[in-house]
Amino acid sequence: MAGYRVIEVKEGILANNDRQADALRRELKQKKTFLLNLMSSPGAGKTTTLCRTVEALTDTMRIGVMEADIDSDVDAKTMTDAGAKAIQLHTGGMCHLDAEMTRQGLEALGDEQLDLIVLENVGNLVCPAEFDTGAVKNAMILSVPEGHDKPLKYPLIFSVCDVLIINKIDVLPYFDFDMDKAVDYARMRNPNIEIIPVSAKTGEGMDAWADWLRRQVESWKQGEN
Amino acid sequence: MAGYRVIEVKEGILANNDRQADALRRELKQKKTFLLNLMSSPGAGKTTTLCRTVEALTDTMRIGVMEADIDSDVDAKTMTDAGAKAIQLHTGGMCHLDAEMTRQGLEALGDEQLDLIVLENVGNLVCPAEFDTGAVKNAMILSVPEGHDKPLKYPLIFSVCDVLIINKIDVLPYFDFDMDKAVDYARMRNPNIEIIPVSAKTGEGMDAWADWLRRQVESWKQGEN
Repeated sequence: MAGYRVIEVKEGILANNDRQADALRRELKQKKTFLLNLMSSPGAGKTTTLCRTVEALTDTMRIGVMEADIDSDVDAKTMTDAGAKAIQLHTGGMCHLDAEMTRQGLEALGDEQLDLIVLENVGNLVCPAEFDTGAVKNAMILSVPEGHDKPLKYPLIFSVCDVLIINKIDVLPYFDFDMDKAVDYARMRNPNIEIIPVSAKTGEGMDAWADWLRRQVESWKQGEN
Repeated sequence: MAGYRVIEVKEGILANNDRQADALRRELKQKKTFLLNLMSSPGAGKTTTLCRTVEALTDTMRIGVMEADIDSDVDAKTMTDAGAKAIQLHTGGMCHLDAEMTRQGLEALGDEQLDLIVLENVGNLVCPAEFDTGAVKNAMILSVPEGHDKPLKYPLIFSVCDVLIINKIDVLPYFDFDMDKAVDYARMRNPNIEIIPVSAKTGEGMDAWADWLRRQVESWKQGEN
């Protein structure tokens, strides 16, 4: 059975990846560099949110961005314009990043001492959730047009994330999105998840998000998390 | 290198899957059953579009629906209410369907003679595009909030689809979505792709989509495609 073989291979790959991710996190700790893994569906607003984040934090910390894309370099240009040191990671059709690909990205980003590096993962709610990238924290964006039921349908990604950004709240009036249900369903998957509603377009809520991220970076540098 | 091993295994799996998909299509041809593979990002509106489609066609043909979901049965209930014979396929964490899983779904759906069966794939723009399910035609939904640049970022899925439904056109005024660019970028990936703008919510454009699908089903039954 093809299905059985796939799973066997996958388990070996996942165990190997976990070891590489732990090693990468230890190195980041020594360098006092905070790595954030940012995940979402295609079109949920990762790049726009990240641009606003870089603009909010760039005065107080040195920021690097790794843009994972199957095949284009739209995002790295946008990010450089916003003030971050950015590189594009072409995954060559791969649906997620793993710890080894992340390490290669960090090497390409260079030796310069950075306080915060954000890895913008491939737009996908399924595969990226299975692979520890070595990041210190996992963040995901759920956008209002996607609907409040997503934690019911894509459980793993909500359970592995430390923070959930609910983006595009400026269009709440035009969608049947129930914020209370979204929060309840997300907490059902992960009782400790931090939830921050924002509009990357209008800027609403972006201060709360930038504050959360700043606190994480400072704690990591001080060895507290 | 872990990466190399993965790719080697994957190529074997894909070749095997292609053979199974071709065999499945031949069987469907004999049974005069048309199978449509419907793909999209999470939250693009697959289920709502499919409900409206079933309502539009159920008077003139017998319809079955296979709802692939990682872990929930929200959609099959919705679909049964709309008038289709529906089953839920739990993928157990898998990010796509292949021909063997589709065959298992068809067997679960039963022996009853159906004219049209729709396979609602896992919400994902990456992995489902790589696996031929055995469907006669591939359809995808791109929703307005996701942005017009998606064909640049997720090229493969646009190139393997016969038809692109652009959904949620009722919210065009609230998003920076350029319909002309979306059409240009999609055609750049696939010059022959049929493009149908709709709002599954308001019903706009749904006649054009139902007409396209009805023509495909009739041609298949008459051995023309």
